[in-house]
Amino acid sequence: MNTININKKFGRFSEHWTPKVIGELNGQHIKLAKVQGDFVWHDHKDEDELFIVFKGTLYIDFRDGRTEVIQPGELLVVPKRVEHRPWTKDGEEVQLMLIEPAETKHTGDVMDEKTQTELEWI
Amino acid sequence: MNTININKKFGRFSEHWTPKVIGELNGQHIKLAKVQGDFVWHDHKDEDELFIVFKGTLYIDFRDGRTEVIQPGELLVVPKRVEHRPWTKDGEEVQLMLIEPAETKHTGDVMDEKTQTELEWI
Repeated sequence: MNTININKKFGRFSEHWTPKVIGELNGQHIKLAKVQGDFVWHDHKDEDELFIVFKGTLYIDFRDGRTEVIQPGELLVVPKRVEHRPWTKDGEEVQLMLIEPAETKHTGDVMDEKTQTELEWI
Repeated sequence: MNTININKKFGRFSEHWTPKVIGELNGQHIKLAKVQGDFVWHDHKDEDELFIVFKGTLYIDFRDGRTEVIQPGELLVVPKRVEHRPWTKDGEEVQLMLIEPAETKHTGDVMDEKTQTELEWI
């Protein structure tokens, strides 16, 4: 049980769309991710997903045509079974925290070249 | 499902030691709290508790004599059944986010004048 400095953890990786685990509580993982460009449309059948943005502006599209804009100091919970597509504008790198059940795949049930099958703790 | 600005939510209350709920995911509440001074020793029998500090410096004492110091941009997970006592120094107000199961009482099994029995959403 140690205090974790979020920015220092962001400094420990540079890959995009590959969330790293920094902690866990009650069966949920606390993850950090750097993202850039477009992600795939996906949903999570049984898991709500929390996004907290620390740097940059994250856009998340929904199938009803709405786009949520999430800036540093802002958060969004995407409920289970809601299809969404995260993306960033003009190649900006966005740094964010995710909290979701430990069994969650970040691409949901969609298998894609971006799908990460092994989780790395940092 | 709307993006939440954390600072704006902090602006919506001023009481200390009375966490407000701003969201939920997977049976967990996302709460904001302003704290100042000493809290009571307590633990949570079945729930891990996540503290993320946004303003000020939070101290958490443990029964083994250790004190964790959590500053803005830092987080700590306190595992279930670990007794802890949060406090702040010299009357500083600390602003923090908590994530814990919806059924968690913030004073654990300790009933105290600070124990909050009704949760308020803001």
